[in-house]
Amino acid sequence: MDLKEELKKKALLVENALEGYLPLPDTYPAVIHQAVRYSVFAGGKRLRPALVMAGAEAVGGDPQKVLPAACALELLHTYSLVHDDLPAMDNDDYRRGKPTSHKVFGEAVAVLAGDALLTLSFQLLAENAAGGSAGPEDVLRVIGEVAVAAGTFGMIGGQVVDIFSAGRAVDADTIKYIHSHKTASICRVAVRAGAILAGAKEAPLAALTDYAGHLGLAFQIKDDLLDFEGEAEKIGKPVGSDLRNKKATYPLVFGVEEARAEAGRAADRALAALECFGSEVEFLRRLAYFVIDRES
Amino acid sequence: MDLKEELKKKALLVENALEGYLPLPDTYPAVIHQAVRYSVFAGGKRLRPALVMAGAEAVGGDPQKVLPAACALELLHTYSLVHDDLPAMDNDDYRRGKPTSHKVFGEAVAVLAGDALLTLSFQLLAENAAGGSAGPEDVLRVIGEVAVAAGTFGMIGGQVVDIFSAGRAVDADTIKYIHSHKTASICRVAVRAGAILAGAKEAPLAALTDYAGHLGLAFQIKDDLLDFEGEAEKIGKPVGSDLRNKKATYPLVFGVEEARAEAGRAADRALAALECFGSEVEFLRRLAYFVIDRES
Repeated sequence: MDLKEELKKKALLVENALEGYLPLPDTYPAVIHQAVRYSVFAGGKRLRPALVMAGAEAVGGDPQKVLPAACALELLHTYSLVHDDLPAMDNDDYRRGKPTSHKVFGEAVAVLAGDALLTLSFQLLAENAAGGSAGPEDVLRVIGEVAVAAGTFGMIGGQVVDIFSAGRAVDADTIKYIHSHKTASICRVAVRAGAILAGAKEAPLAALTDYAGHLGLAFQIKDDLLDFEGEAEKIGKPVGSDLRNKKATYPLVFGVEEARAEAGRAADRALAALECFGSEVEFLRRLAYFVIDRES
Repeated sequence: MDLKEELKKKALLVENALEGYLPLPDTYPAVIHQAVRYSVFAGGKRLRPALVMAGAEAVGGDPQKVLPAACALELLHTYSLVHDDLPAMDNDDYRRGKPTSHKVFGEAVAVLAGDALLTLSFQLLAENAAGGSAGPEDVLRVIGEVAVAAGTFGMIGGQVVDIFSAGRAVDADTIKYIHSHKTASICRVAVRAGAILAGAKEAPLAALTDYAGHLGLAFQIKDDLLDFEGEAEKIGKPVGSDLRNKKATYPLVFGVEEARAEAGRAADRALAALECFGSEVEFLRRLAYFVIDRES
């Protein structure tokens, strides 16, 4: 199967499952459930849940059985987008071609919708992640790891440094910190969650973690490049928003050529991390080049 | 021991434990860890963690063993205060006599500090809540219940209705919904967490849940009354802020006399729920009247 087809197939599974997990839009108090659904079903590549499923497949597990965890990681990602877009943060009016949550529902509901998505993410993990090879200890391990990856030593830490770096001269270490904490940490924990819940041993788990860290970096550098030189109608938000927000990005710090080269090297390193695996990681292998070749 | 002394003793245990769980204030990125600590150590009665410990004691458990869960509930409560105070929400400049998080650290960091506190709360539960009589299944049950109580069918739902009720004529059902979801749901899950982690059977668990629901209502009505008629220097924020924010409150909807009477009845019902217990719930019994007799 074509990589894009495979991604779409995984995205469809996740979206169907999310449809069942999220309260219906007329559930009281309706506005919050409408806001939650608005952002969750606004499109998106569903990369993180795909990594959860692929993490399970890589160690011989059934990707269907880790669907709750896959959905939890997508809710976590969506929460981070809703809060990042807030006026007090990046102040973005558009995301994936649609007005952002606070533009539609107001700032108060957008803050609470993000809070609700984060809370739901942990609820989903606690209530549904067991099954297959996973025992309750494995689920607790995943919840703890997800919290660390999302917290001040992971995603939130990256967002803090990102905000304080805006408009300043940023060095190479800082931009690497931002990318590895804002993006790569969630990619790492996504693939780990799937693998742990499928009963992974420590050696393949470490290799998959290594892969996902490089993949996340390649993905984020490509995001920077698309914002820098992409076409607005393809990426769904105005091009150059990073520049306008004076954001620290790879092309800005290293130049476009070096950013492209580094994305390629990160994809190579991601691929190299998979050497100990066979055909069970075919999806992950092709994903490494997809993330840097994509146009949106 | 005097009830106030007992509350202070429990608060001290919780604050010492939190000191160990929270990253040091100079940990990179420092501003977020400073913001987290600023709000956690801004004082407060530590009522919710006291309920966690008392829930364990009520069923013969060791309150020290549920300290991580007690701390997790305080972090959850603190997150809700930081986000509630934001300009887009209640826009409060003072809390417990100190400037609110966004006044000190700016709005972006305040949003992220709330996010970090919520995330840390689940991390603490997943990593440390086991021990004593609790197995990993009990911990997962607690995490799931905390997420539900904090989510759109609990605290967030209450906050949504609270915000949308401001400035409108509010009926009795709406104010009861707000109070039972914003405040009582977390009190209920606090006492349940302690009891479940101490190996509670279902019957005492149900009685404790019943108690905490009534206690939470009594506590919140008293909060409304203090804001309505209290003294600013005692409660640590300007009196009448609910009125200025056109908040739906018990005294506003039912009148001061009826609000006082309902707080008393809620305390009576809380007490009645403890009938099946002996001296092991002495703290909870005295707490029922403390929450409506307090002056701050």
